[in-house]
Amino acid sequence: MGSLGSGCGNSRHFKPLDPEEFRAQAHQMVDFIADYYKQVETYPVLSQVQPGYLRACLPESAPYRPEPLDSILMDVRSCIMPGMTHWLSPSFFAFFPATVSTAAFLGEMLCTCFNSVGFTWLASPAATELEMVVMDWLARMLKLPKSFMFAGTGGGVIQNTTSESILVTLVAARDRAFDAIGIESLRKLVVYGSDQTHSTFTKTCKLAGIHPCNIRSIPTSFHTHFALSHVLLRKVVEADVAAGLVPLYVCATAGTTSTAAVDPIEQIADVANEYGMWLHVDAAYGGSACICPEFRHYLNGIERADSLSLSPHKWLLSYLDCCCLWVKEPGSLVRALSTDPEYLRNGPSRSGSVVDYKDWQVGTGRRFKSLRLWLVLRSYGVANLQGHIRSDVRMAGLFEGFVKSDRRFEVVAPRLFALVCFRVVPRRRRVGPGEADAMNRKLLEWVNSTGRVYMTHTVVGGVYVLRFAVGATLTEERHVVAAWNLIREGADSLLKNAHSLCT
Amino acid sequence: MGSLGSGCGNSRHFKPLDPEEFRAQAHQMVDFIADYYKQVETYPVLSQVQPGYLRACLPESAPYRPEPLDSILMDVRSCIMPGMTHWLSPSFFAFFPATVSTAAFLGEMLCTCFNSVGFTWLASPAATELEMVVMDWLARMLKLPKSFMFAGTGGGVIQNTTSESILVTLVAARDRAFDAIGIESLRKLVVYGSDQTHSTFTKTCKLAGIHPCNIRSIPTSFHTHFALSHVLLRKVVEADVAAGLVPLYVCATAGTTSTAAVDPIEQIADVANEYGMWLHVDAAYGGSACICPEFRHYLNGIERADSLSLSPHKWLLSYLDCCCLWVKEPGSLVRALSTDPEYLRNGPSRSGSVVDYKDWQVGTGRRFKSLRLWLVLRSYGVANLQGHIRSDVRMAGLFEGFVKSDRRFEVVAPRLFALVCFRVVPRRRRVGPGEADAMNRKLLEWVNSTGRVYMTHTVVGGVYVLRFAVGATLTEERHVVAAWNLIREGADSLLKNAHSLCT
Repeated sequence: MGSLGSGCGNSRHFKPLDPEEFRAQAHQMVDFIADYYKQVETYPVLSQVQPGYLRACLPESAPYRPEPLDSILMDVRSCIMPGMTHWLSPSFFAFFPATVSTAAFLGEMLCTCFNSVGFTWLASPAATELEMVVMDWLARMLKLPKSFMFAGTGGGVIQNTTSESILVTLVAARDRAFDAIGIESLRKLVVYGSDQTHSTFTKTCKLAGIHPCNIRSIPTSFHTHFALSHVLLRKVVEADVAAGLVPLYVCATAGTTSTAAVDPIEQIADVANEYGMWLHVDAAYGGSACICPEFRHYLNGIERADSLSLSPHKWLLSYLDCCCLWVKEPGSLVRALSTDPEYLRNGPSRSGSVVDYKDWQVGTGRRFKSLRLWLVLRSYGVANLQGHIRSDVRMAGLFEGFVKSDRRFEVVAPRLFALVCFRVVPRRRRVGPGEADAMNRKLLEWVNSTGRVYMTHTVVGGVYVLRFAVGATLTEERHVVAAWNLIREGADSLLKNAHSLCT
Repeated sequence: MGSLGSGCGNSRHFKPLDPEEFRAQAHQMVDFIADYYKQVETYPVLSQVQPGYLRACLPESAPYRPEPLDSILMDVRSCIMPGMTHWLSPSFFAFFPATVSTAAFLGEMLCTCFNSVGFTWLASPAATELEMVVMDWLARMLKLPKSFMFAGTGGGVIQNTTSESILVTLVAARDRAFDAIGIESLRKLVVYGSDQTHSTFTKTCKLAGIHPCNIRSIPTSFHTHFALSHVLLRKVVEADVAAGLVPLYVCATAGTTSTAAVDPIEQIADVANEYGMWLHVDAAYGGSACICPEFRHYLNGIERADSLSLSPHKWLLSYLDCCCLWVKEPGSLVRALSTDPEYLRNGPSRSGSVVDYKDWQVGTGRRFKSLRLWLVLRSYGVANLQGHIRSDVRMAGLFEGFVKSDRRFEVVAPRLFALVCFRVVPRRRRVGPGEADAMNRKLLEWVNSTGRVYMTHTVVGGVYVLRFAVGATLTEERHVVAAWNLIREGADSLLKNAHSLCT
């Protein structure tokens, strides 16, 4: 009575979690979702709606009386779906993919089911301990040194995003500097990234109170394949030190957002270690590939870093909000982030024998996040996950081959993983760079407007570049081939209209 | 082949999201979860395991080959369950509850299903627009002024936690101050809360670079029922101004963590407005009750605040990671938090006609978070949600009546919502306050050790207090009665052993 879908608002009998009603409706939702997965290929990848479309479909206020699930699902189909950009579409090649899997979905269901709040060990011992186990498992898969593992002297934690991983490690580094040279030194602390470091780096540094004038964005170029040059880094650091500033933190990237470039960790570690800086490695995208021996060299030097973050939601099938962060010295995180209110005090915390993850993150509350990753690792095993990475890389190689075989196109940056950066190159001499950029922009707009493929762009080295990121979970070779054919079709039409610009 | 549970690692045929396999296994998981909900009442509420218990149960490394779902579920039963503190148990009265519902679970399934990343409007128009609609719906339910609504001049966003809500508004306030008086003023900025403000406030202020000496924790007392005194606040602010400091931000709370006290928003707004401070209202717990007219007065004065946060996961049945934040001036958030990397640029963002939620939060990526709340509001309707609040308050009133009817106990702070703060009061004169605290601590330990109930404690006004927080979704009157009987049984035995301390 009065529960979900009954159409009755009698609160005396309102049961928001009746197990049998849950069972029936959750089964209904499972079928809805399985059908979505089956049909997702048929939807326009990039939504074609106009801003404000949804407000016009929905009432201004929440209903006073309950509405049945069937009406809601009808609205999901008619109002929500048209406004979706389908990240699960096998023809989604934009940004980096957000990968998914049955195992992770089941793990998320379990996490939702328990809804435990693991701020302290005691509040949910299994949640804390499984996260510790899983972080060590993944560390082993990546052949990280024991200095990053609970089985050694470090440890790991699941954050929601790379931004949070950077924020908490930056604050740990900052407070370590305060301990050494006083809190009044804040104004002097300098942080370093490249112009390819994720945009959240600058934002996060500002959040942490780093003076905007002290955030260095070191230029990269075609010459270094858009990787951070340790030579330039050293020069900038030396100049800062000479000016009386204090180098604090450097963020190296394994798989940049624009081109998936990899910064040379070993050489950057030389500079970082020499100047006592915290070295963080943001391997959000590229790190996952390092579970395969043939890619592991991209993390060479990691044993000299202070922290590493990697987002399995990008390439390890784990759904969103799963960014794994390892630190060498958990104590530095805890010193910066711990709180000790009376209402959370308990015996095990007091004994110092447990991890209280609230002291490893920004917030206090936290879900049982490790279940998803645990289910992925167990259900698929390392072998399948390696195979999954390799399959995406192979498909990207196929696409790269297509690009290279068509002389109207060029590959703009070396392909290290499953991202191909390319563009149309007008061959006529009198076509200026602005015109070439405009042509690529037009091609991209046309391709995306068909709804059959979604790609995005970037600008590197002053050049407008198309990004083709393989890796959506449902993508097969035929989707890559179809996307290439569509791109070629667009180029045909574009170049014909441009009076046969290519010779 | 090679997919979940097949026991085969042949990657050529590895399909991590086969719709029919998903369907079968997700149905299996639904039944597993429905059975858990049916049985949760029978489990010990507070886990009885010892630190490190899980590491001993699980292998050191992830498996190389896949394992079947049945084995994993068996381990959930035998390894994970014993380490759970069951937040869903109807006899969970600790902290504040983390409420759940069938509707929210279904919404979370849909959110997981789409796995869209709504950093910009274009990346997922429906995700952005539904969040805008739902935030306005909830604003109307709370009778917030239009200055907090998209339908007016403000707007709302779903954060994961109160910590993030405080962080982003604090940084917006800080950067607004930088604009007015220069970035070098950071050292002078002062923030204000009470000694009952959530512990995350201090942590968040430190994250944002506020000097620890400039974080004011104004003492409260029995006299003000542990609410922040605006008289004291004004005195402290005046002294800071006289000392050349700059008042920046004050955090008022509607429903403090220890006793659910409510700070007087109107009077605090007088001080905040006079000194140009940002006023944030943390209504994480108490705010939900304000959808009922009889509680709405606790938000009186909200029209003069700059921001308000409220966590429906605490009392509106929405599962974790759902903290609603409204701001009066979204532009101030966006100025502090926006990033504009080339790879996220797009027409709608450039046109300024859309909301890009990445500029309202710490991270870049974000899930389709509003689906959960949308399903809760529609499936239950305002009437049932009001009924749900009232039912919890009524049960807490019942418990309070039990306490008051037993002269060995006293209620320590006024009960405004569904939290009862109480303790055993030894009547014999020669029992000192330390001894009384020890007695209450013993009683709590005994009650929790039975596994039949889980409560927590706090210390306010120098006194050790037991907290009985009604509100777990499955709690019924009989669980409250049983909990009281258990507490009485504990007191009987405790007081008998203490040689009949009570007269």
